[in-house]
Amino acid sequence: MLVDVHTHVYLPRYASWLRSRSIAPRILVNEAGEERLLILENETSAGRPVGPSYWDRNAKISFMDQHGIDISVVSFANPWLDFLSPADAESLARDLNTDLEEYCATSPLLQSSTLKRLYGLGLLPLVPGISIPSVLAAVSQIAKAPHLRGLIMGTKGLGKGLDDDALDPVWKAIEENGLVVFLHPHYGVDSSAWGEKENGHVLPLALGFPFETTTAITRFILSGAFDRFPSLRILLAHSGGTLPQLSSRLASCIDHDPIVASRLKHDARFYLGKLWFDAVAYGPEELAFVSEIVSRSERYETGSSNTKALADRKQGSKRMLFGTDHPFFPPLSSSEKWKSVVENLEAIDAVDGWGKEEREGVRAGNALTFFNIQ
Amino acid sequence: MLVDVHTHVYLPRYASWLRSRSIAPRILVNEAGEERLLILENETSAGRPVGPSYWDRNAKISFMDQHGIDISVVSFANPWLDFLSPADAESLARDLNTDLEEYCATSPLLQSSTLKRLYGLGLLPLVPGISIPSVLAAVSQIAKAPHLRGLIMGTKGLGKGLDDDALDPVWKAIEENGLVVFLHPHYGVDSSAWGEKENGHVLPLALGFPFETTTAITRFILSGAFDRFPSLRILLAHSGGTLPQLSSRLASCIDHDPIVASRLKHDARFYLGKLWFDAVAYGPEELAFVSEIVSRSERYETGSSNTKALADRKQGSKRMLFGTDHPFFPPLSSSEKWKSVVENLEAIDAVDGWGKEEREGVRAGNALTFFNIQ
Repeated sequence: MLVDVHTHVYLPRYASWLRSRSIAPRILVNEAGEERLLILENETSAGRPVGPSYWDRNAKISFMDQHGIDISVVSFANPWLDFLSPADAESLARDLNTDLEEYCATSPLLQSSTLKRLYGLGLLPLVPGISIPSVLAAVSQIAKAPHLRGLIMGTKGLGKGLDDDALDPVWKAIEENGLVVFLHPHYGVDSSAWGEKENGHVLPLALGFPFETTTAITRFILSGAFDRFPSLRILLAHSGGTLPQLSSRLASCIDHDPIVASRLKHDARFYLGKLWFDAVAYGPEELAFVSEIVSRSERYETGSSNTKALADRKQGSKRMLFGTDHPFFPPLSSSEKWKSVVENLEAIDAVDGWGKEEREGVRAGNALTFFNIQ
Repeated sequence: MLVDVHTHVYLPRYASWLRSRSIAPRILVNEAGEERLLILENETSAGRPVGPSYWDRNAKISFMDQHGIDISVVSFANPWLDFLSPADAESLARDLNTDLEEYCATSPLLQSSTLKRLYGLGLLPLVPGISIPSVLAAVSQIAKAPHLRGLIMGTKGLGKGLDDDALDPVWKAIEENGLVVFLHPHYGVDSSAWGEKENGHVLPLALGFPFETTTAITRFILSGAFDRFPSLRILLAHSGGTLPQLSSRLASCIDHDPIVASRLKHDARFYLGKLWFDAVAYGPEELAFVSEIVSRSERYETGSSNTKALADRKQGSKRMLFGTDHPFFPPLSSSEKWKSVVENLEAIDAVDGWGKEEREGVRAGNALTFFNIQ
């Protein structure tokens, strides 16, 4: 069985908004008469091709069938509602969450099962100036929608990031309702970092996205939010960006800085064991590493220094979940299986230390438990 | 035996320059009459304490003795000459390289050995507007200095980064002379990423530094420089930043981008096997991971998919080298051993899969070979 936890949709209502806009994010028609998606204002190219795979449910199901995916937990794609006024964000969040529940509720049943093939992650009207009750209303709407199991969130919060104390009532409501937060990047880092050479989308996608996710979750941890809301269930996009590789450095920097040295209840590395990670990293060593890092979290409670790579990998795999990032990363030539998907599946198969049980968990079982799909 | 390859010095001549300045980088005297180092103009605090450990050779040797370090390969500290005019950079580079050779040449002998206790990494006058012959003269000066074994370099190159074709003659000269390039961060990323909360230096140091190194070496690789200069020997600070964890994602993004998909001779992951990494990551799993990533490089030539974590770790350890980052990360309270150093030593001891041979290699042997100290 195979469950995809990282798969996006621009629902028709959202695509219409993008078509109506004259600045990014927008969908425009180029000189060849083709629709193109421009996500960021400073994108150097003329945007990316966009079509039915972005909004047509049949295209999603067809992609799933082609790659043997049984169930997808579909989330809205960046930049969500970030660019809207509070009033527009509030009403569009309500409508899109309703649309997504309908999209999932009317999806086909999984063969010989009562499960649907599509479940969803809604969104919140997180924009500067929104009232907290409006955000809480969206949390409540999602919690009541039978096929929505959480929400996808960018890194800006109410405009000041995820370490903003004003978000505490939102975290509390999400925690109380047992909803999953899927944390996903959009902005990268300041594009001056990428220099003047023409490198397509490689640098913002390969580096900027994971840098942004890493920064957001680090600021969240540093704010003590996990100490206040220890039952929050956060899934990090792209295998946690670079947080795993920087986690001991982060712990050391905290230890050596008088301003933050005694702020948190735990060593910074402890908090990585409270997170979930998609398995969208394209290589077996990367997946293996994340599973070790998750596993060692416990040692920062028990004081044990026992580090056994292969055993750690087995245990940590329980917090890793297969994903595709569909409809992004399509093959340069069409019709064959998507290389991006095949690579992630091959990576799961190739992790040294994972047996049949761990591979099946990462492919499906962990997601069914995490999203309470049964 | 223990060799420290990541240890910095602000030589007296350089400290004098910093004291003469009224904007960062500068050394100022605060209201309490203490000298403070302000490295970046937008640092939120009043800079960091600075003293003899930054410039006094006796303090360096004393630190080495305290931690059992036999030999240090000392490098200049950021921001090097980045802030100077071409004329000042050229003359200060010449003088500082002379000073550093003297600093090493007159250092004590290692007990019962003809080796000195200090070797050095010089610097180049890499600033916008400098002439390439001036840079080449500095390469030549370093190559002729008996105790200098390479140079430390920031990420700006001639102002446009390390993917600037204008640097090709510099790479060629460095390669031909067999000098090591120690690539080190200074600028981080745009500080707007860190938000409004007071977190001391944690975010720019723990995240910004590794992000910068990762971006610089990725741009270097993407420019095809390793295809043109395959014998360049580059050592990455802080265990390569986040390049290892992002390397399969990078390879995938390159594969999926028509602008760069066919530019390089090799899969992006191949190039990680051409690099060296300091072991300044503060955790055993991080070191283990880097050694696996180095090792898998070969598989992208042979097409083998055999991944055996513990064997890979042994092989990859040969490109990893102990470091301290002295005089940075001093303990919050003084006199005891530096926690930052102890953690890096404990991490080397705790890597699952490294035996006595690998640990001794990372502690000393790899560095002696890499820097040709014999």
